[in-house]
Amino acid sequence: MFEIAELGHAVKKSEYNSQIPELRTQLLLAQYKLDKSNYPVIILISGVDGGGKGEVINLLNEWMDTRYMRTIAFGKPSDEEKERPKYWRYWRTFPAKGTIGIYVGSWYSDPIAQCVYGEIDENQLNVDLMHVRQLEQQLIDDGALIIKCWLHLKKSTQKKRLKKLEKNPETQWRVTERDKKHLDLYEDFIEVAEQVLKGSSTGESPWLIVDGSDIRFSSLTIGRHILTRMEQHYQGWQKKNNEQAAPAVVDTTHLLQQNLLDSLDLSLNLDRDCYRTQLSKYQGKLNKLARKARDMKRSSILVFEGWDAGGKGGAIRRVTRALDARNYQVIPVAAPTDEEKLHHYLWRFWRHMPRAGNVTIYDRSWYGRVLVERVEGFASEDEWKHAYSEIVNFEEALSHHGVLLIKYWLHIDQDEQLKRFKEREQISYKRHKITEEDYRNRDKWEDYNLAVNEMITRTSTQHNPWLLVEGNNKKYARIKVLKAFCDGLEKMIEGEK
Amino acid sequence: MFEIAELGHAVKKSEYNSQIPELRTQLLLAQYKLDKSNYPVIILISGVDGGGKGEVINLLNEWMDTRYMRTIAFGKPSDEEKERPKYWRYWRTFPAKGTIGIYVGSWYSDPIAQCVYGEIDENQLNVDLMHVRQLEQQLIDDGALIIKCWLHLKKSTQKKRLKKLEKNPETQWRVTERDKKHLDLYEDFIEVAEQVLKGSSTGESPWLIVDGSDIRFSSLTIGRHILTRMEQHYQGWQKKNNEQAAPAVVDTTHLLQQNLLDSLDLSLNLDRDCYRTQLSKYQGKLNKLARKARDMKRSSILVFEGWDAGGKGGAIRRVTRALDARNYQVIPVAAPTDEEKLHHYLWRFWRHMPRAGNVTIYDRSWYGRVLVERVEGFASEDEWKHAYSEIVNFEEALSHHGVLLIKYWLHIDQDEQLKRFKEREQISYKRHKITEEDYRNRDKWEDYNLAVNEMITRTSTQHNPWLLVEGNNKKYARIKVLKAFCDGLEKMIEGEK
Repeated sequence: MFEIAELGHAVKKSEYNSQIPELRTQLLLAQYKLDKSNYPVIILISGVDGGGKGEVINLLNEWMDTRYMRTIAFGKPSDEEKERPKYWRYWRTFPAKGTIGIYVGSWYSDPIAQCVYGEIDENQLNVDLMHVRQLEQQLIDDGALIIKCWLHLKKSTQKKRLKKLEKNPETQWRVTERDKKHLDLYEDFIEVAEQVLKGSSTGESPWLIVDGSDIRFSSLTIGRHILTRMEQHYQGWQKKNNEQAAPAVVDTTHLLQQNLLDSLDLSLNLDRDCYRTQLSKYQGKLNKLARKARDMKRSSILVFEGWDAGGKGGAIRRVTRALDARNYQVIPVAAPTDEEKLHHYLWRFWRHMPRAGNVTIYDRSWYGRVLVERVEGFASEDEWKHAYSEIVNFEEALSHHGVLLIKYWLHIDQDEQLKRFKEREQISYKRHKITEEDYRNRDKWEDYNLAVNEMITRTSTQHNPWLLVEGNNKKYARIKVLKAFCDGLEKMIEGEK
Repeated sequence: MFEIAELGHAVKKSEYNSQIPELRTQLLLAQYKLDKSNYPVIILISGVDGGGKGEVINLLNEWMDTRYMRTIAFGKPSDEEKERPKYWRYWRTFPAKGTIGIYVGSWYSDPIAQCVYGEIDENQLNVDLMHVRQLEQQLIDDGALIIKCWLHLKKSTQKKRLKKLEKNPETQWRVTERDKKHLDLYEDFIEVAEQVLKGSSTGESPWLIVDGSDIRFSSLTIGRHILTRMEQHYQGWQKKNNEQAAPAVVDTTHLLQQNLLDSLDLSLNLDRDCYRTQLSKYQGKLNKLARKARDMKRSSILVFEGWDAGGKGGAIRRVTRALDARNYQVIPVAAPTDEEKLHHYLWRFWRHMPRAGNVTIYDRSWYGRVLVERVEGFASEDEWKHAYSEIVNFEEALSHHGVLLIKYWLHIDQDEQLKRFKEREQISYKRHKITEEDYRNRDKWEDYNLAVNEMITRTSTQHNPWLLVEGNNKKYARIKVLKAFCDGLEKMIEGEK
């Protein structure tokens, strides 16, 4: 795989100098086109030690307009990063649409290093690679261009390079003990790298393998590669942009063998006394369990979705009352801010990831993508259809990190909804909660119904099933919500023992 | 000072129950008004251990709409926090306009604890309090409402309270060794607290001292206090909002004894050979010094301001070429995003504070407030006049944390500017840099000139002076910029020895 990069390519200084001005101009022009577009560019510069990653990145920073470009490097994870799912540290750095992020070190660094050092086996490596592919696919589906470059060196060249760096007092500092150790592990490293590169070269984000033995050759090659990919991507984007949007023929009813929601027994209820007893029982229990989870540094995420006036707010308050205000956050999800619009739609949820031991409650959530955005046409059919698997992967990443995730759907029927709208209009401090829009949404009940059913079918996984809550009786619903949280915590705490 | 809070106030359950519904309704209404306004509310709940801070916060969360409110607690600073100036951890939590942040633990916690434990002396405490006042004043000047509540307990009551908590297995966990130690230090604590409260009670943000011995009394008192303050503030805001904006009579020429910019010798220049020699000399030097600073975990911030076409971009590139791309960020400052608009104008600069050892380069900066925002009328006269001292305080906080700050003003004259505009229009990849607006700004040269002169006069401090760069000759300017950065680093590194 690396043979082509061991031929010792070199570019003469005169040739290099004659090529650079044109390349720079073209790269700048590509950047200005990018600025006018609506996708981000992610450039990974990876490779063997001494392969010239730093030099290439410095040149790219010199050639291009740094106002639309950031270089992102990763050291050891900070404690804030360690307390969150592993990809959180990457999500927080992803470039906004119209800009470039150059990555030195990336989601590939850990799997490769860990495998070379024998900390993970081949199976784990394959699992990690699957996650990497999912991450990249998510970004690509959102329009991102990912350009991956690998700087290769023969062992003998690597050895020479490190020696040369070491001899010069100006560059000595760049050779670390780790580099020397890596040289000893060269064969293992190459073997793992080959596996990783093969396993992550996809049609949409292939690896470019470059001979790193001559900086003029490697920088020119990478510069031209970036230019070509950016040009192609821009053309593709323009074309897609100009095409008539295909009519959104939404027919997915065949997926729904039965209407899950209709099967709920909405007559379930609790009387006042029974409610009071159960409420204090489960709130007391929750308080203790939540404290235990906090001490164990285990986080929880609760997702509340449901019909308008389905009782989300009331249920959330019954939960938070049992918690220590210092340990939870309620995140109300409304329209995204403009910064959020410049990123993948999951980005804004990654932003609020709780630190270890905390509870984050989403009042509406990432499911907006396949509910309101689908029904109202804010997301294209392509976008919301992709969202199902993206969401499943996202939630798996949470579980994988040990986060307890509970997804509640608060269900009521149309009559009950209307009753509640009317009630709200009677209460002074609830009147603001009812708008024209609520009534408009009622007219789309069937569309929403279809979307909700499909959402539940497609995103209920073994690990992260939906909890459907019969909500016509608020008391019943609140107790069911509390109890489910208690059960989840209990199971998590038991599991740890 | 605390006598009033030692009388053992109590509220009967029946009275409490009859008052709460009305208070809750009013608080919710106040929140909805807040949502329509454009200022944030910051509520501090502080006080002695066992004073009921947690209970009060839980009640506030229950009474109010948590969709417009967040509770913020502080534990030990994370490593990401430790690597930045001390107030960074507070800035990252400040509530957006239209929302409420409830703080349990705040910028008061450290000074009080450190003084009680004898880690800082009274002088240091006073300096810390001055910084606290400056911080709060900045927020208040930006429109924020700050409500500070202190829950007090007599020593005997505190002792009883802790004992009771300890006896109940449900609440035992809340009594820590630290609490017991604090009980022994009660007198010292009260003495320091008194000093702190006195030193930070201002007309605009006074402390409310509340007897914490009865939770019904304290929560009602605090709830009502919050309501009153929110009402008053809203009325004040409305009134101000409705008033005709006073005509912006900007006459500050008397401040300017002389025109600083006119005194610059713009004929200074360097020939090509001399430039080349000096460039590689200072870039080499800078590379070494920057590495040293990185190893010492000392950060630098460079601010580039100057006339359009003054040569900021070119000068920045000459600096970054000498740095390792992994250790610097160039932050181009354009119009704020909508999230940024919902905060104090300094918030977006706090966001990009470099972690320890890194270099952040601002291509335009917080000085926009007193330049473009002033001249174009985006900031009110009140706002930009306040900005001078805010900026000076902000920069002091940076220096105080050990950050090297260098502020460059790249100066050219009008003829040179016109020449450069024309040149840019000739070069394919520079043409985009010239817009109609640039020509419009030229017409306001005199207004800008006044603003720049005033800015330099008012924000050149001993610690953080402006470096005026004679920019008609680009070569001369670039070398001066590089040399100044080298000198700054050298001095910083020397100082450490």
